[in-house]
Amino acid sequence: MDIIFIGAGNLATHLSQAFQQAGHRVLQVFSRTEESASRLAALLDCLSTTDVTDVLPEAEVYFLCVRDAVLQELASRLYAHLRKIALTGNPRRGAGALFLHTAGSMSLDVLPMLRRGVFYPMQTFTKSRPVDFSQVPIFLESQTDMRLMELLARALSQQVYHLDGESRRYLHLSAVFACNFVNHMYDLSARILEAHDIPFRVMYPLIDETAQKVHSLSPREAQTGSAVRYDKNVMQRHLDLLADDPSMQEIYKLLSRSIHDKL
Amino acid sequence: MDIIFIGAGNLATHLSQAFQQAGHRVLQVFSRTEESASRLAALLDCLSTTDVTDVLPEAEVYFLCVRDAVLQELASRLYAHLRKIALTGNPRRGAGALFLHTAGSMSLDVLPMLRRGVFYPMQTFTKSRPVDFSQVPIFLESQTDMRLMELLARALSQQVYHLDGESRRYLHLSAVFACNFVNHMYDLSARILEAHDIPFRVMYPLIDETAQKVHSLSPREAQTGSAVRYDKNVMQRHLDLLADDPSMQEIYKLLSRSIHDKL
Repeated sequence: MDIIFIGAGNLATHLSQAFQQAGHRVLQVFSRTEESASRLAALLDCLSTTDVTDVLPEAEVYFLCVRDAVLQELASRLYAHLRKIALTGNPRRGAGALFLHTAGSMSLDVLPMLRRGVFYPMQTFTKSRPVDFSQVPIFLESQTDMRLMELLARALSQQVYHLDGESRRYLHLSAVFACNFVNHMYDLSARILEAHDIPFRVMYPLIDETAQKVHSLSPREAQTGSAVRYDKNVMQRHLDLLADDPSMQEIYKLLSRSIHDKL
Repeated sequence: MDIIFIGAGNLATHLSQAFQQAGHRVLQVFSRTEESASRLAALLDCLSTTDVTDVLPEAEVYFLCVRDAVLQELASRLYAHLRKIALTGNPRRGAGALFLHTAGSMSLDVLPMLRRGVFYPMQTFTKSRPVDFSQVPIFLESQTDMRLMELLARALSQQVYHLDGESRRYLHLSAVFACNFVNHMYDLSARILEAHDIPFRVMYPLIDETAQKVHSLSPREAQTGSAVRYDKNVMQRHLDLLADDPSMQEIYKLLSRSIHDKL
């Protein structure tokens, strides 16, 4: 299929390359900044633009991979532009194409188009790291084009799910806990070690086993440590060690209490 | 070497079997409960007891793998018992043996013995999961027996470090963040999914990649998401979804603010 990417961030970079490798054709990349647009277009060997009114009408699918805050407005401008062209051009594409956004926390309704869907690959994407899409679960929502979206998703991943917008909002929230907040715990751990000249790499085996454990035990069953036992001596000693960082003390107290209360 | 284990919990179970597989001999297991003592003794094909005054004086090394709260008192009782025997028995062992505790947050000084050390394998141990000790970092402290402890540790692991008690306390605190608090984030994630009939296994790829990423990027560099951007719209929508759980709302707010403040 002929695809155009609106956005050139981490997700657009990985997703567009994955589609290209799966045999689809990326015609053009739009980004607000010239540098991002050219960089991704060079990787894909396709056209680029920084002007919405230069977005080509020829694509069968438009992927909108932009920040939540600008998604709705950009979708409106894109649609207005393509409808204008449609009055004089090929009616099967352009405004009549399929429009997909990739934002887990956003409703399908932010897209004003007739043929629209949400295509949410749930993973943490970093430009510098390769992504194996075959292991990335993709969550789909559409009232008009589920079959076509399935084809697109299955070209990339073994794990394709249908999920309505309400459930997807909770899924996205759940991912904030399992990814962003987890990563912040790693960061706080790294800061404690750094202050005492201990290299963070000593944590890798513990980090990996903690992640692996919840593949076979529920997180609740997997929990160990002083917070489970609510061992006040250990907890007070830990709080004393954090005396110079009230914010970390507060996090320590709140999470210890939550572990204990939720058991 | 001839080893006796005081304690029969998760760590004692894994550690004693690993030493046996490495060619050392476990003579006896002590546990306060008959069931735990017999269970581990059966695994090791060795003696067991639930009475400190029945602990044999023949070992060269005694491993104390018990809860922090009971460690000091149990060490005292064990030492009193072995000194009593030493008055009439073999002076090279018993009270003259090497005593090691495995508690990351406890001082070396909780052991009253002359030959003593801390042998801290930093990993999360669950009885039902096999442990590959070769990948477990072991942290050693002793004023009297470092060479012998190195031999014991290197029989199990490639990663053996010397670490003083002060630094080890911070290491242990850091592990609470990287393991127990991380696991609690998994638990909160699982609870959100469960309430919306989404299986937790959809999170595995995200959980695994989040853990893998910090092997090559610092956690700070690896961070993504709405808290980094401090996207108040997304954050408010998430808080609304958590309206029926004020404790999770509080955690969400505190961690989002901390991610933003620590950048």
